[in-house]
Amino acid sequence: MDLRDASHSLSEWRELIDRAEVGEVDEPIVNVDRDDLREYDAIFVGGGAGGRFGSAYLQALGGRQLVVDKWPFLGGSCPHQACVPHHLFSEAARELDLARWMSGKLWFPYFKDERASILEMVELFRAGRNSAHAFMNWQSKEQLGMEYILNAPARVIDEHTVEVAGERFTARNLVLATGARTRWPDIPGIDLPGVYDFASLVEDIAYEPNRCVIIGGSKVAIEYGSFFQAAGCPTTILSRSPLMRTASLHHVDEDIRCFVVEGMRTRGMTILEGAEPLEVVGDAWATGVTVRLADGRVETLEADFVFVGTGEQANSEPFVETLGVEVDDRGSIVVNRRMQTSIPGVYAIGDLIGAPMEMFKARKCGMTAARNVMGQPYEFDFSEYPDFLHSTYEITWVGLSEAEARERYGNVIVIQMPPKGVDFDELPLPCAEGSMLYAFTRPELTGFQKCVIDGESRRVVGAHHVGFGAKDAFQYLDYLIRRPQGLTIDEMGEMNELFLNPEHFIQLCRLRAGQGALVSL
Amino acid sequence: MDLRDASHSLSEWRELIDRAEVGEVDEPIVNVDRDDLREYDAIFVGGGAGGRFGSAYLQALGGRQLVVDKWPFLGGSCPHQACVPHHLFSEAARELDLARWMSGKLWFPYFKDERASILEMVELFRAGRNSAHAFMNWQSKEQLGMEYILNAPARVIDEHTVEVAGERFTARNLVLATGARTRWPDIPGIDLPGVYDFASLVEDIAYEPNRCVIIGGSKVAIEYGSFFQAAGCPTTILSRSPLMRTASLHHVDEDIRCFVVEGMRTRGMTILEGAEPLEVVGDAWATGVTVRLADGRVETLEADFVFVGTGEQANSEPFVETLGVEVDDRGSIVVNRRMQTSIPGVYAIGDLIGAPMEMFKARKCGMTAARNVMGQPYEFDFSEYPDFLHSTYEITWVGLSEAEARERYGNVIVIQMPPKGVDFDELPLPCAEGSMLYAFTRPELTGFQKCVIDGESRRVVGAHHVGFGAKDAFQYLDYLIRRPQGLTIDEMGEMNELFLNPEHFIQLCRLRAGQGALVSL
Repeated sequence: MDLRDASHSLSEWRELIDRAEVGEVDEPIVNVDRDDLREYDAIFVGGGAGGRFGSAYLQALGGRQLVVDKWPFLGGSCPHQACVPHHLFSEAARELDLARWMSGKLWFPYFKDERASILEMVELFRAGRNSAHAFMNWQSKEQLGMEYILNAPARVIDEHTVEVAGERFTARNLVLATGARTRWPDIPGIDLPGVYDFASLVEDIAYEPNRCVIIGGSKVAIEYGSFFQAAGCPTTILSRSPLMRTASLHHVDEDIRCFVVEGMRTRGMTILEGAEPLEVVGDAWATGVTVRLADGRVETLEADFVFVGTGEQANSEPFVETLGVEVDDRGSIVVNRRMQTSIPGVYAIGDLIGAPMEMFKARKCGMTAARNVMGQPYEFDFSEYPDFLHSTYEITWVGLSEAEARERYGNVIVIQMPPKGVDFDELPLPCAEGSMLYAFTRPELTGFQKCVIDGESRRVVGAHHVGFGAKDAFQYLDYLIRRPQGLTIDEMGEMNELFLNPEHFIQLCRLRAGQGALVSL
Repeated sequence: MDLRDASHSLSEWRELIDRAEVGEVDEPIVNVDRDDLREYDAIFVGGGAGGRFGSAYLQALGGRQLVVDKWPFLGGSCPHQACVPHHLFSEAARELDLARWMSGKLWFPYFKDERASILEMVELFRAGRNSAHAFMNWQSKEQLGMEYILNAPARVIDEHTVEVAGERFTARNLVLATGARTRWPDIPGIDLPGVYDFASLVEDIAYEPNRCVIIGGSKVAIEYGSFFQAAGCPTTILSRSPLMRTASLHHVDEDIRCFVVEGMRTRGMTILEGAEPLEVVGDAWATGVTVRLADGRVETLEADFVFVGTGEQANSEPFVETLGVEVDDRGSIVVNRRMQTSIPGVYAIGDLIGAPMEMFKARKCGMTAARNVMGQPYEFDFSEYPDFLHSTYEITWVGLSEAEARERYGNVIVIQMPPKGVDFDELPLPCAEGSMLYAFTRPELTGFQKCVIDGESRRVVGAHHVGFGAKDAFQYLDYLIRRPQGLTIDEMGEMNELFLNPEHFIQLCRLRAGQGALVSL
């Protein structure tokens, strides 16, 4: 299906993707400029976040690219199975949590013991997700001028050649961008029906879960588990490490962690730390999980729904096979800061190169590859970045935890709300949009925040927030605290806050900024 | 009541304020260091946002201050009658709006035609507001080391002397900070029972409004009106100017304005622009408002609740009388950028010096006065700042509107979502926390955003957002775009976004940042 000269509207794109999804379109969807005789500067193998943003950037630089994806749309797993459903479910969790706490108060109806349907939420997502896909196909063609082939997997032949639906395309460079998949734990019964990960949940679930056991303590485990519990499905998390103290999450402040994990327990979740899942039990269907608990006891926990949140592994195998590209001991493709692999002319980006498996990284890897392909010697270091996850709250942080700062600096100043020693029950702060109703009904639920400052340089070295509405700001805080001169408490105190602002950092810093020798607040 | 040597807990403070509020404590609450023999560097007359932050800053600088307030708490009108109830009511409006759109879907019960009680929300606020007050009294004494006298008005005797409850205090300087009050329109019937402003609504209302007419088109009118309508109380706004196109709101983008105002109409509000209110009618109680409409017709609109949102005027009269301080034609005290009035040694800050009557300005005025009092020649220019208001959405903006940018620059690039020409019904973007449920049920409701760029310098010159969760970020965007080197699209494109982020600016900028000659998106 050659769409080069067509100009599909969003609804036409959506209809096409809908049809492709149910198998009614099985030919490739081709948007290739056959009149352009230039060699491709790069072929992007995989059109997810990294492939699409890399392609856009390369186009913007005046290069020629082709991006190929097996799915009938660009954008990859984020809008199809990962970030977007996660955000939809996390919003549901937040609203359900509010509905439960406010049950029978003000205009809120009685809801304390009501169920919300997980299945219905999944179906809502499934029915709607192609709208975002349609937009990305439309934008990529009409606004960004990209060339692409969709609905057909790319097979890499060599470092310059890719085969798609029987046709070979060559390029100066390849950019590998096929992402990652769940690393399923190697225990008996894991392949039973009734065991899901974030992807198969969205694709396959067809019944209403009534009791959930989650294997693993990743972000996904916390996020989806919080949703299941908020929906009224009793949920147990089995985590080897203390929750939010896993290797894949760095810089988590211990006070923040306690607020979040205790908050999950308060809402009825069972969190078993130091737990080792041994087996998913069941005959034709998963009916429980056998686990060795921290104290050594072995128990079987009942479940009609087992969810795996143990992290992901790169889809690197085909490239090891055909190109011999170097991978690390977890199977992630090894790259330098220019996204160059061990094979000259072959780049790899996104989840395929390992953690952090986050959107900013995938997209900026794509940009980095594009710039280097086009002769700009650009490096991307993603060892530090702002991070977030959801429970029923948004939890966002950047820079150092208080403990990390105390290891590194001799004079650490902490500005936090509630202040140390103040009872959360007595103080409806922090509060702003999203926590106002709590502030006036359950002050202990409004959130928690902390700003960590090196008292000598006066620089903000870490910022941490649990609540609502602060996530967006951390993008800019990350930039500000990591620029060479950093961000001092004095500069914070001179900014213009929009009150009530979710994180109160500017105003709180101003209360201390006048001090020569800073004191915690 | 001398509390200098007491160390009240938050709950003890709350009890004391509760008692003072109902008249059980009528003596001054005194926290003055009688052992400190230094002269006061400044007495702050009024302990609202400006007086409290100015006092804190002056203390932090090592100066000695006294702050006096007629109310039994510090913090002023913001947590008592203004910003805090506004945010509580705006959160209610947002949740009620969601409840109506989602009525009967998913777990949401039928709600389309239900009422929520405005009175009950006011009572909730009234019952809880003293918690924040208690915290500010506690923090100001225990953490910030401030001296204060509460529950007693200050009378200014001369430029160095203030009398409080019969005792005179002298200081090197005075800082006037007694705020503003509603500028009631001068029409017959305005003093009838049943006519409220934001302050008397919170203090006095004792019945359930069932039909509201709002006189004026200020932020307060839009914010409270959106809440009344969302609660199910049919609401009409009478505004002389087109809504959001008043002199007091600068840099409002026309596309944003249309999205917001049309959104209010979609939700059932009646908005009459070009309307001139002539009279509040009624015998013992307001029963309607007579208005001359834009087409010249005169009509009487029925109402059992009239709300005045026509803006505010400074409480400057006592200072004109006793000090002869210069005021402008609206009665605001005239100050320079150091907050110095026409009287040497007398400063004025906050709402008392006129628009913008915003928290950041009040607090930073306080800081500015404190620094100058303490010999730091510091200037504060608040002619440009980030701004926001609520409908059922958060609306936030900074910098130039698209039209303003086009007047100033020859090559304006606009990056917006939905893109120009795309139907809002077809695109569930922008979306993130707060708009995910809409994205999958009513895509046209998710919001609207725009980034305005000067194509030559590549600098972001304006950013505009309607939706949820972006407000906090605009504090930092304001700082970034107004620093000397500004913020280019290229720098935006290199930031680390937290996806899904409410305003998508970083990722959208990255899609264009590679271009030499920028093109709109």
